[in-house]
Amino acid sequence: MNKIFALLALLLGISSCYAQDKQPTNSQQSDSTVIASIYKSALTSSLGYENLRELTSKAPHRIAGTDGCALGIKILYSQLKALNPDTVYLQPAMALPWARGEKEIVYVVLPNGKEISLHAAALGGSVGTGPKGLKAEVVEVKSLDELKALGEANVKGKIVFYNLAMDPSLFNPGEGYGKAAFQRTMGASEAAKYGAVATLVRSLTNRIDTFPHTGVMRYADTTKMIPAIAISTFDAEQLSAMLKANSALTTYIRTTSKMLSEVESYNVIAELRGSEKPNEIITIGGHLDSWDLGEGAHDDGIGCMHAMEVIRLFKQNGITPKRTIRVVLFLDEEMHQVGAKAYAASVKEKGEKIYVAIESDSGGGVPIGVGMTASPEQMAAFKAQMPILATYDLNKFRIGGGGVDVNFLKPLGVPTMNVLPSPHRYFFYHHSAFDTFKEIDLRESQLGFAAHAALVYILDKNDILGK
Amino acid sequence: MNKIFALLALLLGISSCYAQDKQPTNSQQSDSTVIASIYKSALTSSLGYENLRELTSKAPHRIAGTDGCALGIKILYSQLKALNPDTVYLQPAMALPWARGEKEIVYVVLPNGKEISLHAAALGGSVGTGPKGLKAEVVEVKSLDELKALGEANVKGKIVFYNLAMDPSLFNPGEGYGKAAFQRTMGASEAAKYGAVATLVRSLTNRIDTFPHTGVMRYADTTKMIPAIAISTFDAEQLSAMLKANSALTTYIRTTSKMLSEVESYNVIAELRGSEKPNEIITIGGHLDSWDLGEGAHDDGIGCMHAMEVIRLFKQNGITPKRTIRVVLFLDEEMHQVGAKAYAASVKEKGEKIYVAIESDSGGGVPIGVGMTASPEQMAAFKAQMPILATYDLNKFRIGGGGVDVNFLKPLGVPTMNVLPSPHRYFFYHHSAFDTFKEIDLRESQLGFAAHAALVYILDKNDILGK
Repeated sequence: MNKIFALLALLLGISSCYAQDKQPTNSQQSDSTVIASIYKSALTSSLGYENLRELTSKAPHRIAGTDGCALGIKILYSQLKALNPDTVYLQPAMALPWARGEKEIVYVVLPNGKEISLHAAALGGSVGTGPKGLKAEVVEVKSLDELKALGEANVKGKIVFYNLAMDPSLFNPGEGYGKAAFQRTMGASEAAKYGAVATLVRSLTNRIDTFPHTGVMRYADTTKMIPAIAISTFDAEQLSAMLKANSALTTYIRTTSKMLSEVESYNVIAELRGSEKPNEIITIGGHLDSWDLGEGAHDDGIGCMHAMEVIRLFKQNGITPKRTIRVVLFLDEEMHQVGAKAYAASVKEKGEKIYVAIESDSGGGVPIGVGMTASPEQMAAFKAQMPILATYDLNKFRIGGGGVDVNFLKPLGVPTMNVLPSPHRYFFYHHSAFDTFKEIDLRESQLGFAAHAALVYILDKNDILGK
Repeated sequence: MNKIFALLALLLGISSCYAQDKQPTNSQQSDSTVIASIYKSALTSSLGYENLRELTSKAPHRIAGTDGCALGIKILYSQLKALNPDTVYLQPAMALPWARGEKEIVYVVLPNGKEISLHAAALGGSVGTGPKGLKAEVVEVKSLDELKALGEANVKGKIVFYNLAMDPSLFNPGEGYGKAAFQRTMGASEAAKYGAVATLVRSLTNRIDTFPHTGVMRYADTTKMIPAIAISTFDAEQLSAMLKANSALTTYIRTTSKMLSEVESYNVIAELRGSEKPNEIITIGGHLDSWDLGEGAHDDGIGCMHAMEVIRLFKQNGITPKRTIRVVLFLDEEMHQVGAKAYAASVKEKGEKIYVAIESDSGGGVPIGVGMTASPEQMAAFKAQMPILATYDLNKFRIGGGGVDVNFLKPLGVPTMNVLPSPHRYFFYHHSAFDTFKEIDLRESQLGFAAHAALVYILDKNDILGK
């Protein structure tokens, strides 16, 4: 605890909330008026919410490179056009799609012959089992050390069941996710080292329920590619209990998932031209691809809408940005980030100046603050603006901001930011069939739209990040 | 806007977030360790959540003075006993119960004779229509000025339909509630002045749905008591549209609601004795009564649990308070506050020193800060402690804290406080059949327990409020 505290104390000293008891400047007063009108517009419009309904209902499954993703791109392109920005265009990138195939089958065979079916979903990128499936004994581990200790003698020919829960005692669910994610991302190849024939992986959510959560996994070049399947947290608890009662349980698994051929797809981009510094670009985006189990509503349809609504709210409130606002709806955040790479390559090639890059990929919860990766001077300058945002409960400042897609701009020296939504429910939805439009609250979506527009407005208006 | 801004600017200057860039003191460092262990305990226990499940499932309807309330008192008494505080006792108060009677009937009769049924619920305290119900023309208003302008000529013998929505453009839903609540609280007597025979009242929620929301109403002494019935926001929109098409619509309403006889009931109180200053008392409470449509989960079963869990979390973490912590589960917040009045009278009579009084009555959402009514010196002293709480996203400081029950202690000079949960969903549940245990999230409840225990710990430990 003491070590952790020392770190916390250090962070608190330099990262805690905005300056207190400062009187707003004249400029901040007029900014407050504009931001109040942004909030009023956002809280009384349902356009962004209805656009999300259209995207998630017509194109719920948007794995990059699939037909569902292509349909999503069409819908988003047309929604952006309807907002009437200065330009809307597609930026090509080669996607490497993966197909889930037929509904997975996973069941445990009890000693009495009874079969217990588990809620299961292949992980993104997993190979299939072949049409006959496979049957093997299951061995449970909670760490790579445990796996290593078991060794080939106890793993060869078996299915490795990774069952480390997201640690509920951590205040930040993202931290628990980070500590448990190895099971999903590298678990298969680690198990294959010892001759495992497949892996079952406890879903990465901090709720006990029956939704399996998928997500990307990767194979090391040096090991055999074995199937990797997520099971729900409820089923993981059940399976673990069954293994305690019978250490030599057999499980049958079947998935026909596979990688498909490369196909051209696109980022969708729209711009509102800057009036004073059109060549300085504020990039704001979410990712248009999604997993295929739910509807990609929290992850990341809402992020696309957060970005798109900045255009609408600026136009509706007659705000002319000094700099160009470029909305980028990224292709393929979930698997290979081909969209983000294409965008960063284009920025570099053209020598564009990205003033700041903002990403929304943390769901549609109530915004509580802002995260930022930038120089100490830039962060200090931004924090001085936060009293205006505190009126809308955006009180938290976190060192560290951006997202998987805009992080590709960091090597170009671009400051990266994101609005921080309340993090506690996000993993309930993440990568599962529970991630549907129904789980997006109208008012919370409106608060998110307003927060993103207010953030972009302040960054642009007050030249916070230096020249 | 400018006037509002001037006010905001003023408030920001004196009320905005805790001091930035302050290094924690040594005392704050050890406090951080204790608070971290409080959070860890809270986030890994489901006792408070399960206690709430028991209360809301066994005694869902707890209007003060009814059998349901008496059962709730028994359950809470026994749950408190099980926490093993130094004492648990009942404090008597005379309740004035009200009974809803049979399920309300409200339908509109269209010109073609078709009957359109509305989702309806009598308001708490309303008289009935008599067993035959009543039928009359409906006239819609959105303000008392409109009602007055219509006058007796247009109101006499009719049902007045109050249809002012909670203003969605206001960032704080509580503000919208406050501006629309007159329709419910005084609408009947205002309409009776002009000879109305009953009122229909748009439900006080910022969602459009089919749940009628009840809540207390009061009759003026000088006017006839006429029935007052809430209809859902969806039905209010429909009724308004029907009235636009046919200005002379007839509506039938029937409710058998009535006041019952006075009956003795109780506050439930438990204490953890202070080790250094046992005669200084930290009061923390919620209210044990609830409306009868849902289960009183957000309003205010969770508030009772927030208070009770302080005892559990102190004991589990071996924290001995300097001052006496007194958990007070108040009777009858919803109607006449007889419990709060009895408690305040007892404090006054005994000359007890209440160091601070904390109330939780804003639901089980994620905590985002603290509200406080106290002297400027006390508020400044508390704000200096807030960096510790910011670790757990308790960033907001609001001038103005407490709650309906503890506010009765204000005349005795007691500082009042409350933890601020995210306010945006609260009115979805408030006083309706939607306020069920199912709508309480386990993790959010745990965050609430931890926040209340951490707040009490800091207040007690650091003598923040002066001698």
